[in-house]
Amino acid sequence: MPFAANNPDRKSWLHVDKNSDFPIQNIPFGVFLTRDDIITIGTRIGDTAIDLGALHQLGYFDDIPLTDDIFLQDTLNDFIADGRKTWRAVRNKIAQIFDAENKTLKNNVKHKEIVLFRLDEIEMQLPVHIGDYTDFHSSIEHATNIGAMIRDFDNALLPNWLHIPVAYHGRSSSIIPSGISVHRPQGQTFPDGATEPVFGPSKAVDFELEMAFITTVANDLGEPIPADETEEYIFGLVLLNDWSARDIQKWEYLPLGPFSSKNFASSISPWIVTLDALEPFRVEGPKPIKPQLPYLHFTGKKSFDISLEVAVQPKNAKETIVSKTNFKHMYWNMSQQLAHHTINGCPINAGDLMGSGTISGPTTDSYGSMLELTWAGEKPIKMKDGSERKFVNDYDTVIMRGHCEKDGTRIGFGEVSSQLLPVFVKKK
Amino acid sequence: MPFAANNPDRKSWLHVDKNSDFPIQNIPFGVFLTRDDIITIGTRIGDTAIDLGALHQLGYFDDIPLTDDIFLQDTLNDFIADGRKTWRAVRNKIAQIFDAENKTLKNNVKHKEIVLFRLDEIEMQLPVHIGDYTDFHSSIEHATNIGAMIRDFDNALLPNWLHIPVAYHGRSSSIIPSGISVHRPQGQTFPDGATEPVFGPSKAVDFELEMAFITTVANDLGEPIPADETEEYIFGLVLLNDWSARDIQKWEYLPLGPFSSKNFASSISPWIVTLDALEPFRVEGPKPIKPQLPYLHFTGKKSFDISLEVAVQPKNAKETIVSKTNFKHMYWNMSQQLAHHTINGCPINAGDLMGSGTISGPTTDSYGSMLELTWAGEKPIKMKDGSERKFVNDYDTVIMRGHCEKDGTRIGFGEVSSQLLPVFVKKK
Repeated sequence: MPFAANNPDRKSWLHVDKNSDFPIQNIPFGVFLTRDDIITIGTRIGDTAIDLGALHQLGYFDDIPLTDDIFLQDTLNDFIADGRKTWRAVRNKIAQIFDAENKTLKNNVKHKEIVLFRLDEIEMQLPVHIGDYTDFHSSIEHATNIGAMIRDFDNALLPNWLHIPVAYHGRSSSIIPSGISVHRPQGQTFPDGATEPVFGPSKAVDFELEMAFITTVANDLGEPIPADETEEYIFGLVLLNDWSARDIQKWEYLPLGPFSSKNFASSISPWIVTLDALEPFRVEGPKPIKPQLPYLHFTGKKSFDISLEVAVQPKNAKETIVSKTNFKHMYWNMSQQLAHHTINGCPINAGDLMGSGTISGPTTDSYGSMLELTWAGEKPIKMKDGSERKFVNDYDTVIMRGHCEKDGTRIGFGEVSSQLLPVFVKKK
Repeated sequence: MPFAANNPDRKSWLHVDKNSDFPIQNIPFGVFLTRDDIITIGTRIGDTAIDLGALHQLGYFDDIPLTDDIFLQDTLNDFIADGRKTWRAVRNKIAQIFDAENKTLKNNVKHKEIVLFRLDEIEMQLPVHIGDYTDFHSSIEHATNIGAMIRDFDNALLPNWLHIPVAYHGRSSSIIPSGISVHRPQGQTFPDGATEPVFGPSKAVDFELEMAFITTVANDLGEPIPADETEEYIFGLVLLNDWSARDIQKWEYLPLGPFSSKNFASSISPWIVTLDALEPFRVEGPKPIKPQLPYLHFTGKKSFDISLEVAVQPKNAKETIVSKTNFKHMYWNMSQQLAHHTINGCPINAGDLMGSGTISGPTTDSYGSMLELTWAGEKPIKMKDGSERKFVNDYDTVIMRGHCEKDGTRIGFGEVSSQLLPVFVKKK
């Protein structure tokens, strides 16, 4: 019964708002600091956070083979490394414990006091120690838009793009959870008309709307993973804002790819929604435009119908939704990405993060970056407060949200929200 | 007395061969498995490995503030995170313990039995858990050679190269210590004359001769490190063979840089030689060809005179030296690299690895890759056994060595040696 926890008819004895991203069918995993300043692994139902470390100590997982301290960790890495069988057993057990028909914990006031937290009592942490961060480039609309801006419309897609799930390595050390602010980066740019590069704050800080998946230990050095086996190694997904400085990127990116323009920060949503929870939302992906090499072939539906939106909120003003798109538009799916990543024997570990690349849809209001939405600043976006944006301004907060919905069940990711601060100034 | 351990007049009571890379002035740090299958942190004098965990338990470091288990670890990360003051105190203390005039350990047969190992009794491990791996591209000769092959001699260097210490992110999970074999990677290539990409084993597996430095915790998110403060955060250096598949690289690298062509393996030498041990070998670097932006300015000598060589050894045959070069040729030095890496606020942690990029010298026999040495296969290299090489063959072992020498003192890195095996075949 791998998907028992997905039962759409189950209700929880915990209160869940009608439009919550976190009904009892979700059961995501995260890491938080409790009101007692203890770090623990937890899950969330509605607006209640649940301390899995405490639940385990109280014996609620006694019929599952788990080490005593599996949830008393500051990251999910060990739990993830335990593999899919364990994730499924724990998720199914949580569904049982919080099922409206189950009175054991519901009627135990003492236990509930230990285990349950309001969201304002906890502080979400980075859910995993990220060993390696890979960022794909898998949206054909995004690749085409960028190519059209840099080159021209007729040669927008490079020749390799329809054959390779193109990717590059990103920086793990600057990945931060939702809620942490980011400083506008400084660096080198080469403005139009200049004869030498200049140094200063980036004038084109941008977001990139992405999803990212988190893996478990998958292979030894040298060993590829067949595309149809890859999902066994995908723990779950988060929202990812891959902050970018477009002017720095333009000057630095040849020949080895983006570096300073990207590695100053990437923000992720703190609750990892399991691949299992997304099972009901599988859809067919786009049809391949060109034949793909056999190692990239897969069977079944490997794309997911996840509605996404980006809001920009100026300081002391209301947010404006600047983009609405969907994860299902991605040309290359996660199975193809992992098959490609390992075809040369590159080892995948527990806690690796794999970004999708910017998710742009087919329409001009469904692009996943300001660069595309404003067409490099040519068409500024009008904000609700009357101001305009070409890129992200100091003190703007960028908020990304995502959810699936089908037959009355909604599974969501919450949000990744991060404010852009001015350039860092060292405290004296 | 930060450099007390460098005293060139000191002799050790341990035997050291005349041409050893590891006199008592070196005192590198590494991690090894002992004859009792215990992992410990150690150092090396001559051909004797020294268990620092055991030395500490026996009280030899009692006058230095160290946690009890600082050397009883499977990586150097915690020791490195303790900072330069600790590294210096420990290195100076080791120099005292093994000084020919010091009889304390020398005359204690029981302690020596616990602490000292022959090299054939131990197995070297990866010395650090590498959080992030950055690879620079800092040899002007290498960048020019590659540019000349891809473009033409007049436009060999891209416009940004003389302004930016160009870098990209590599993969941490496939970094392995000397002695571990590597499988020939499979992947996509686009051979000359083809109309579609083809799949198969790379036909152009290459080495890249590099040095790499390992850092300690340096900065918070957002905070740049001034160039003249960077050396405080450099623990030491190793040799790095950044394995590359040139045919895969050629087809995949635009627009986001190399990925599958690089992330199948990178091999490092197991003993980290501290920056302090290299102090006597500082030299001036190349004069800048163009003015550099102020954040890349530095004072003093930041280049190091390290002789390097690469040997290729076919199966059951003698090795052939295919390249001899020097680290001092690098156009951008480590201080500039770290200043650039952090100028946008990217955080640097203990155990990050920063590769120099391929180290090519000015002459055709001093290039750091087969791609350059054979000019993309046009000029095959003659081997001692009569065979020829355009790239690396199956069962070839690639060996890189490096050392400094001045006024009768030689400080070396030992070697990084790794055999190329045929494509991985899954065991039934």
